[in-house]
Amino acid sequence: MEIGIVGLGLIGGSLAIDLRRQGHTLVGVSRRKETCEQAIDREIVDQASTNLAILATAEVIFLCTPLHSLATTVDQLLPYLDPATILTDVGSVKLSVVAELEPKWPNFVGGHPMAGKAESGLEVAQANLFVDRAYVLTPTATTPAAATETIASLARSLQCRVYYCDPAEHDCAVAWISHLPVMISASLIAACLNQPDRSVLKLAQELASSGFRDTSRVGGGNPELGLMMARYNQPALLQSLYAYRQQLDQIIQQIEQSDWNTLEQQLLQTQQGRSQFSGTT
Amino acid sequence: MEIGIVGLGLIGGSLAIDLRRQGHTLVGVSRRKETCEQAIDREIVDQASTNLAILATAEVIFLCTPLHSLATTVDQLLPYLDPATILTDVGSVKLSVVAELEPKWPNFVGGHPMAGKAESGLEVAQANLFVDRAYVLTPTATTPAAATETIASLARSLQCRVYYCDPAEHDCAVAWISHLPVMISASLIAACLNQPDRSVLKLAQELASSGFRDTSRVGGGNPELGLMMARYNQPALLQSLYAYRQQLDQIIQQIEQSDWNTLEQQLLQTQQGRSQFSGTT
Repeated sequence: MEIGIVGLGLIGGSLAIDLRRQGHTLVGVSRRKETCEQAIDREIVDQASTNLAILATAEVIFLCTPLHSLATTVDQLLPYLDPATILTDVGSVKLSVVAELEPKWPNFVGGHPMAGKAESGLEVAQANLFVDRAYVLTPTATTPAAATETIASLARSLQCRVYYCDPAEHDCAVAWISHLPVMISASLIAACLNQPDRSVLKLAQELASSGFRDTSRVGGGNPELGLMMARYNQPALLQSLYAYRQQLDQIIQQIEQSDWNTLEQQLLQTQQGRSQFSGTT
Repeated sequence: MEIGIVGLGLIGGSLAIDLRRQGHTLVGVSRRKETCEQAIDREIVDQASTNLAILATAEVIFLCTPLHSLATTVDQLLPYLDPATILTDVGSVKLSVVAELEPKWPNFVGGHPMAGKAESGLEVAQANLFVDRAYVLTPTATTPAAATETIASLARSLQCRVYYCDPAEHDCAVAWISHLPVMISASLIAACLNQPDRSVLKLAQELASSGFRDTSRVGGGNPELGLMMARYNQPALLQSLYAYRQQLDQIIQQIEQSDWNTLEQQLLQTQQGRSQFSGTT
């Protein structure tokens, strides 16, 4: 199969590496000439160009640009596409993306391969990034079933666990387990840094260890990613933030009232409940 | 030196292993006979007993019981102690502990070796648990300098980084970097579990990966430990929870108002600020 990739970063590059090893022909597009050259030198793609016209014969095209460039990219791609060409994206939010892209190209399937790294860019693209990871597809009532099945079969070939749901459900679920943790974690770092007693802050910085390290990790990550989550998943993220604040208020109240029995029950429930989430055991 | 350990769990047992290897004579006390036998079988201590009288000739005694048993333990120890004997504890809060124990035994130094594991008990005690870890000592105006120096020198022999501060400062610092993260993290798990849409919850549980795993880790830990933090460090923990809630409200407001510039600045600050905390780079 001839497969196009627009956006040769971590995700686009890693998809290309795995799919090309399976025998597909990979055609890459990047805004930067140097990235195209690097992708060819490293044999990540068969051909690469800064010009979208190179994708005219691709059967499937993965849109791997940042969220805010997706619509423009599709507009610029349209003149070159055959009606049979399947478009799919890899964005971490789906409701707004699907609503924007589906009317432009009916043969579109929203997708979200849930893999990542702290670093970004083609430099860190790697083989097998997607093994055992979730790959969510969000077909709508009008998505052609054959298009969905083509992307699902490519995702399975990467050894992903494939899930199907509607775009709104996807956005709520990732708000809870991915976007909310970023805001919670960033608030921890900010609250610590802003605390007024400088000698306590200095001591806290020296005593911090694994508890602080893990709880603060995602809040100390790429600001651009955090911003995109808030911007493109605003309603679902706010909903989870409101529910979280209520829960936090309950725990604060238990501590204020020295209600140790209720707090202990709460902590027992969270200890037991955590293991019901993938990746925690 | 003859060194006593009361409470042969993870911390007490690990202290005994390292100190005995240095040539000290180790005498252990546990409430449970089986634990005493295990400590002797594994050559963690030279002698062990369920009877505190065995500690009569110890020059330094580490109190490694749970926080709520410390005062009773000291009361029961007093009849056997020589005035020169140095007592020290390993509790994770210091203000209430020092206030309670210092009047009972003037030759007392509050201490907190900051090492731990997910599991507890003598079974998981190990050599070198304290290497490169912080060991905080909280001498007061009345603590004999020689007692502080004896404990500091033992802590340095474990390859700890030794810090000195007053008990209140310690409690504020650990509230920020250890106790607050537990409550934040437990609230995340609880909010996710309590969210009313069951199909979203199921999907969230399946899609959860490293972001959720790390942010939820300490909130899914030992409930007894979390409860002790809240109970014995109540004022400092509440102070940090209030400041944290204010910070969270600011981020919620930025998202509500689509104030992306301010949110981006905030996330840039947390990205840069995180690296100023020990253990995060």
